[in-house]
Amino acid sequence: MPPAHPFDDDKLKEECGVFGVIGLTDAANFVALGLHALQHRGQEAGGIVAHDPEQGFNSARRFGYVRDNFTKQSLMETLPGPLSIGHVRYSTAGSKGAVIRDVQPFFGEFSMGGAAIAHNGNITNAEELRRELIERGSIFQSSSDSECIIHLMARSLQKHAAERLEDALRRVEGAFSVVAMTRTKLIGVRDPLGVRPLVLGRLGDGWVLSSETCALDIIGAEFEREIEPGEMVVITDKGVESRHPFRPQKSRFCIFEHVYFSRPDSIIGGRSVYETRRQIGVELARENPVDADLVCPVPDSGTPAAIGFSQESGIPYAMGIIRNQYMGRTFIEPTEQIRNMGVRLKLNVNRALIRGKRVILVDDSVVRGTTSRKIKDMILDAGAKEVHFRIASPPTAWPCFYGVDTPQREKLLAANMSEDEMCDYLGVDSLRFISLDGLYRAVGEAQGRDPASPAYCDACFSGEYPVAPRDMLAKGFELKAAE
Amino acid sequence: MPPAHPFDDDKLKEECGVFGVIGLTDAANFVALGLHALQHRGQEAGGIVAHDPEQGFNSARRFGYVRDNFTKQSLMETLPGPLSIGHVRYSTAGSKGAVIRDVQPFFGEFSMGGAAIAHNGNITNAEELRRELIERGSIFQSSSDSECIIHLMARSLQKHAAERLEDALRRVEGAFSVVAMTRTKLIGVRDPLGVRPLVLGRLGDGWVLSSETCALDIIGAEFEREIEPGEMVVITDKGVESRHPFRPQKSRFCIFEHVYFSRPDSIIGGRSVYETRRQIGVELARENPVDADLVCPVPDSGTPAAIGFSQESGIPYAMGIIRNQYMGRTFIEPTEQIRNMGVRLKLNVNRALIRGKRVILVDDSVVRGTTSRKIKDMILDAGAKEVHFRIASPPTAWPCFYGVDTPQREKLLAANMSEDEMCDYLGVDSLRFISLDGLYRAVGEAQGRDPASPAYCDACFSGEYPVAPRDMLAKGFELKAAE
Amino acid sequence: MPPAHPFDDDKLKEECGVFGVIGLTDAANFVALGLHALQHRGQEAGGIVAHDPEQGFNSARRFGYVRDNFTKQSLMETLPGPLSIGHVRYSTAGSKGAVIRDVQPFFGEFSMGGAAIAHNGNITNAEELRRELIERGSIFQSSSDSECIIHLMARSLQKHAAERLEDALRRVEGAFSVVAMTRTKLIGVRDPLGVRPLVLGRLGDGWVLSSETCALDIIGAEFEREIEPGEMVVITDKGVESRHPFRPQKSRFCIFEHVYFSRPDSIIGGRSVYETRRQIGVELARENPVDADLVCPVPDSGTPAAIGFSQESGIPYAMGIIRNQYMGRTFIEPTEQIRNMGVRLKLNVNRALIRGKRVILVDDSVVRGTTSRKIKDMILDAGAKEVHFRIASPPTAWPCFYGVDTPQREKLLAANMSEDEMCDYLGVDSLRFISLDGLYRAVGEAQGRDPASPAYCDACFSGEYPVAPRDMLAKGFELKAAE
Amino acid sequence: MPPAHPFDDDKLKEECGVFGVIGLTDAANFVALGLHALQHRGQEAGGIVAHDPEQGFNSARRFGYVRDNFTKQSLMETLPGPLSIGHVRYSTAGSKGAVIRDVQPFFGEFSMGGAAIAHNGNITNAEELRRELIERGSIFQSSSDSECIIHLMARSLQKHAAERLEDALRRVEGAFSVVAMTRTKLIGVRDPLGVRPLVLGRLGDGWVLSSETCALDIIGAEFEREIEPGEMVVITDKGVESRHPFRPQKSRFCIFEHVYFSRPDSIIGGRSVYETRRQIGVELARENPVDADLVCPVPDSGTPAAIGFSQESGIPYAMGIIRNQYMGRTFIEPTEQIRNMGVRLKLNVNRALIRGKRVILVDDSVVRGTTSRKIKDMILDAGAKEVHFRIASPPTAWPCFYGVDTPQREKLLAANMSEDEMCDYLGVDSLRFISLDGLYRAVGEAQGRDPASPAYCDACFSGEYPVAPRDMLAKGFELKAAE
Repeated sequence: MPPAHPFDDDKLKEECGVFGVIGLTDAANFVALGLHALQHRGQEAGGIVAHDPEQGFNSARRFGYVRDNFTKQSLMETLPGPLSIGHVRYSTAGSKGAVIRDVQPFFGEFSMGGAAIAHNGNITNAEELRRELIERGSIFQSSSDSECIIHLMARSLQKHAAERLEDALRRVEGAFSVVAMTRTKLIGVRDPLGVRPLVLGRLGDGWVLSSETCALDIIGAEFEREIEPGEMVVITDKGVESRHPFRPQKSRFCIFEHVYFSRPDSIIGGRSVYETRRQIGVELARENPVDADLVCPVPDSGTPAAIGFSQESGIPYAMGIIRNQYMGRTFIEPTEQIRNMGVRLKLNVNRALIRGKRVILVDDSVVRGTTSRKIKDMILDAGAKEVHFRIASPPTAWPCFYGVDTPQREKLLAANMSEDEMCDYLGVDSLRFISLDGLYRAVGEAQGRDPASPAYCDACFSGEYPVAPRDMLAKGFELKAAE
Repeated sequence: MPPAHPFDDDKLKEECGVFGVIGLTDAANFVALGLHALQHRGQEAGGIVAHDPEQGFNSARRFGYVRDNFTKQSLMETLPGPLSIGHVRYSTAGSKGAVIRDVQPFFGEFSMGGAAIAHNGNITNAEELRRELIERGSIFQSSSDSECIIHLMARSLQKHAAERLEDALRRVEGAFSVVAMTRTKLIGVRDPLGVRPLVLGRLGDGWVLSSETCALDIIGAEFEREIEPGEMVVITDKGVESRHPFRPQKSRFCIFEHVYFSRPDSIIGGRSVYETRRQIGVELARENPVDADLVCPVPDSGTPAAIGFSQESGIPYAMGIIRNQYMGRTFIEPTEQIRNMGVRLKLNVNRALIRGKRVILVDDSVVRGTTSRKIKDMILDAGAKEVHFRIASPPTAWPCFYGVDTPQREKLLAANMSEDEMCDYLGVDSLRFISLDGLYRAVGEAQGRDPASPAYCDACFSGEYPVAPRDMLAKGFELKAAE
Repeated sequence: MPPAHPFDDDKLKEECGVFGVIGLTDAANFVALGLHALQHRGQEAGGIVAHDPEQGFNSARRFGYVRDNFTKQSLMETLPGPLSIGHVRYSTAGSKGAVIRDVQPFFGEFSMGGAAIAHNGNITNAEELRRELIERGSIFQSSSDSECIIHLMARSLQKHAAERLEDALRRVEGAFSVVAMTRTKLIGVRDPLGVRPLVLGRLGDGWVLSSETCALDIIGAEFEREIEPGEMVVITDKGVESRHPFRPQKSRFCIFEHVYFSRPDSIIGGRSVYETRRQIGVELARENPVDADLVCPVPDSGTPAAIGFSQESGIPYAMGIIRNQYMGRTFIEPTEQIRNMGVRLKLNVNRALIRGKRVILVDDSVVRGTTSRKIKDMILDAGAKEVHFRIASPPTAWPCFYGVDTPQREKLLAANMSEDEMCDYLGVDSLRFISLDGLYRAVGEAQGRDPASPAYCDACFSGEYPVAPRDMLAKGFELKAAE
Repeated sequence: MPPAHPFDDDKLKEECGVFGVIGLTDAANFVALGLHALQHRGQEAGGIVAHDPEQGFNSARRFGYVRDNFTKQSLMETLPGPLSIGHVRYSTAGSKGAVIRDVQPFFGEFSMGGAAIAHNGNITNAEELRRELIERGSIFQSSSDSECIIHLMARSLQKHAAERLEDALRRVEGAFSVVAMTRTKLIGVRDPLGVRPLVLGRLGDGWVLSSETCALDIIGAEFEREIEPGEMVVITDKGVESRHPFRPQKSRFCIFEHVYFSRPDSIIGGRSVYETRRQIGVELARENPVDADLVCPVPDSGTPAAIGFSQESGIPYAMGIIRNQYMGRTFIEPTEQIRNMGVRLKLNVNRALIRGKRVILVDDSVVRGTTSRKIKDMILDAGAKEVHFRIASPPTAWPCFYGVDTPQREKLLAANMSEDEMCDYLGVDSLRFISLDGLYRAVGEAQGRDPASPAYCDACFSGEYPVAPRDMLAKGFELKAAE
């Protein structure tokens, strides 16, 4: 199971996608399709829980792609019923060994019935909560922060699961888009800042919750609306009830969902993600023009921005780098060294096209910078005359604590170097990032970023964390000094 | 193992790729990499034979992708030595059940030593040869036409394998690019028409044979030259010896290699395949202009032509259809029908972009027309105002007998309908194919096609077969009536 | 993975075996061997937990035989450290689908450190405890009664795990032989009645706990002593500490361990199990003599009693039924019916030996009687003149609630028929069971069974349950009426 | 897949079993059952070929046990038709890596139709034949001697397969029991000496060929008769035709089939194999009495002889060694050495029984002597006072070239030592083998062995080879010097 994205090892990674269905026969089959469409949000593992009035709760959790597990008749038949939720998750880089117990949804049997939850985001006070719960006799099965939610629910004095979930989430800090289910209810919640996405769709008599709209499309569901930051929807056969269990706050949606995480065919805040990315390319071309022969995307995530850059600059768009559709990662390295073999397994330069040309490479971000260097090498080996990098996001200088897998701050190239130093380090003729204001303009904020009250969470670029990362601070993480 | 191309079931399919290495330590590791780069030429199965002076011949043949089989240390260690060849092959549509015995390379032990061969192409008199060989006591192990070659070699009165191979190939009709090996020699041969590609590369002290140049790139080998039509090269540690064992003929390279089979980053006849395809888009825009808002490729193979079409027409290029990078093919269909579920698993329309637009869709070819209809449906469902198909090849009206898996003639849309009828059948606002002359211009023949002596094999479009398909004629296949 | 015993489907089944090691390098490797020797006590699944000072707790739980899972270097290397426990378990007949979460050892993280437990036996008030724990916020992961113990431990107010375990087991009713571990301690406990076995062994500087002595033999450990009923041993690097946390009671060891469950090469209460079984055959011959030509065991469990019967009666012992060493259970039944195919896959009659003979068949028990009938058919088909069944246990008329998988009372042949009716039902010339007194004599009670205070638990024969089966009574199970 | 016999590595091993069926619906299902019953004759791999009038020939060949492969509905459905043959084979010790191409039945397509063959035995001039066939253009697919037969058939000038098989077998030297099939015929042949067994059975309207009668029993077929040495039976829907294509010779059936290879529930030459082995024990007790307390078999193959020894000597029979029914072979050896771990995985001594006793151990044969030593060690460790080995065959001093896997002569203990030296080497109190005359008496030759014209092939004991081992002689093997 090779990665679907060529540079997974040098990208920020969304950690989860969630999906839920109520009111459709064999709901788990829809969930499987929805998770397949959300696979880019979590490639490591997936799980589905379903409830049937006669057979009760059933669940299946598997490592690997949705398409390889949840397509088997024999498995899907064990998940009957009109109510189902599912979850896909990413591998945490460097974890000592993934275990199936960490795969969501998590399930708990309470005295008035059971509930299952699937969580996208990250709880920033999870370690504190876990310590407290263990002291009081809870037994944790996983190393996941999300498991706190189910234990908090188990200990709630509320009778029903929806109210137990409210209780639990009021104790939780950080970012969460949660899809949960009881025997009769499908529940969706977003944290007050609305950091992670969650949308509501409709299919026939059924309702659907999904991280992104692209997963509504795959099952032919109509997009209804986004769940609002701080909102909880409780869906039964009587319809959708909306609650607001949290103190209201100004929302701070993750701006990186626009840049990279979400699928280009999803719609966020009424805007096509593809179109936003193309617009980033336009802004990028305006902010950082350069004379060149070709604009080439680093496949595949740089493609929309490269198209926009080409259209704005008038420099022809071309596929200078071809991605191998059958990517692999573990071939035996032959005795005689192959230069940059890891990259060659995934990409190849279109040599006849590149030779003698001045090439603009458009990529979505620079994280460690390791693959950017290798790509530059390949392009120069192929005979390019000049290489100019244009990056569709500002320098990534701070880790995310809200559900994205980022390297430690020390490993982030932009945490250690200025833009010029990075250019030298990468060995390219020029390197330019879009400005934070430019990025805000591309996502529709005509005035750019309002420093007093930014419309998005942009902590990875700005170092301004909208929720204090309590567990990390306890471990010694240092916030950006006040300026 | 899902298909890497979204519409494998409605495409012509190249049936094989071949690769060979001599003079490099653990040559099989290079072959594995080369086959990985040639995986698009054959996804069903792969095989590698290697020879080591001490351990003799070893082989491994497996169903599935190269990356899933030939990346295991334990397997690769069983293939030591400096001389190795390999083969990837496609599944033949509708075959009752693939068997590992059909997977190449084929090996034969002769009285003066053994030899292995890997064949790309198709032998048009294979059935006749097989009957004759069985009558004389040969026992066939596979249902493959290519096995004839090894039996003909076994019965040759020549002493050495290279001469036995010459003997064998002189009996064979049809298309063949063969890579073969003995204990000390790497051999490459192309049929006199040179229908299938074969190139020679160099890496350090070693030599490489490959179906395409993209597989030289992956191991960092330098492209040396193409093997000429009708040429046999015999490579030993003394270097490359060139022979010409066949009666010379005018070459007829497969023009569809340019249109679809070869990888866009390969170089054929000195031309970038990507650039040729972009040029096809340019010709297509010239021949068949249409007023519209967007030019969208049918991913991924339509992309270069769509770029060319956009550049020539000035109509903006856009990714109106997004391919799911984790394609699957066998999800359980939920009870409530999902319209066009098969396509949705692979593609999604960028709805926010398409709505209300006049869209030009550029695809590489129309075979049965089944997926074209589904894509049109999706585009219209998403609210497009008009849909115009532009096809980067002429109507495919005749089956290929030279190593490409084509449906029977009756199943080819263009064998049964005129262009207008196809337009009606597909239900689009317009449908235009590039002309045969336009295609010839795009591949560099400024005057277009010379009907008296065409530079390429274009039988699938023209019905003019450069080699009589003897076995098929015996079964009743009818050639195009003389005009 | 076929069953090792030919008539698993018509036998009482021990549900678990436990094993633990402290003070030996890579203790898990010894545990794997010990579990292999205890495989007859639980064929469905196995699990091992190990603790290493540097790497903490690690665990692996797998379906299938120990030999197929815990022999892989890659797996065993994930279980380092000098302290390890393990568990094998049987499939519960009719369970809807075994899940890995039900496989022991169970692990819990408490506020002062973690602990793992492995349990042989059955908790007769588990459902009551589970309800209570869930009401107080515990989340159960499995459907196993044994999981109660770990939750009771988590809620104990004691600081250390050993004391928490004492607390927990005082709440528990029924039968238990528990092996547990913390970071530094190996703990063994038997319930006050000592229904299930547990022995202590020594190997070099290390200590071993095991269900049976045969598992000490496989690793070359010396048998030290049995853990006493009601005793808890806490073993650290300082040695073995003995505690007695329960109110003392007269012990009631399971007499069926002698008859069938334990391995013949184990030693229980100072007696060879093989020798006890041979003695049962002697008693059986004395109580129920019959004139015949051959004494044949029903393989393999009837063998020792048949030897004893032959020796006491003077009738020659012979292998009239041969067991297929490669037993299978799921061949496709050919169209033309094969009579008794299920039995034929496992056994064959030694036809040349049996023809015309009067045969005594010695079997260990009659449960449903289904296989006894099939064996009788095979023997008669082979031409036997007479068939006499002699059974090495009294009629099994009551289910076990102390860790043995028995059919519901309605399914037990002896619950519904008298001895004569069973004889008719089986269609044999005679059928005799050993008397309960005879069985007691064979296990060393010279005076037979003391009805006022039986030395063993013999509830499956007598219907006298030494511990009230609380959960079952709540579900309506009716005890034997007082006489 | 562990071995079913505890000492496979120190036993002579039969190399094959064959089975065929004609005239029964879905014949392959019967063949699967038959092969399961013959699994002891070949544990490594199995294959089945079936023919259906509509679907032609189909085959499946697999490594592993019959029960693990040929029980799957999906596989068995690919083998339809009323005519089927199958084969099980042993692993050849030390072969560099078994390949599926070596697994029989072998299939060949001839000009008048195809045929499949399954061969039990060994061709002593196979290498000579192979050289000759390769020179004439045959391509071998396997390293098996048996493949010669199919190539000889392919080159025969006869029209039909049965006559081609006669032609082929007349060229072949050595031992063979062959089961073959064409589209309409089931054929069985034994070599003129009749070294390997082959029997004919009947089930309803169908006919069955099998290596042993135990495989007739499993499908409920009636034993009809043995195929005679030198006989060919050709079975069609018209019945059984008997031919005698070879020059008649006095038969020399393999005496070791009686001692060890065949299953005890098979009948050979009208005698129960079990009864013959018991009689060997009787002869052994007469020839080599010893005063002792217990007679114990080395499980399982020594059991019948031990029973006979006990009955003749009056010394009680006892199970002093218990076999682990779940044998394994590859546990990780814990750091602290476990003495004789390999043996402990398979056997355990019944310590309580053995302590202080004088024990007679009855085993079927001594090959290398390695396991005999380990067993002796275990018995002495358990406290036995004396250990006396009694062996149910004469010293094995010569390799077999007729289808049995024997170590090279140098590795055979009896080739290098006298009986007394072996006794010293094994470290036992006494060691006695049955005499060759005693063995002949036990198999029914009242006068013992006739040195002028022995009734059996006993080359492994006597060094007198009834067929010159031509290939081996060419490689330097030295026959026994004339006395």
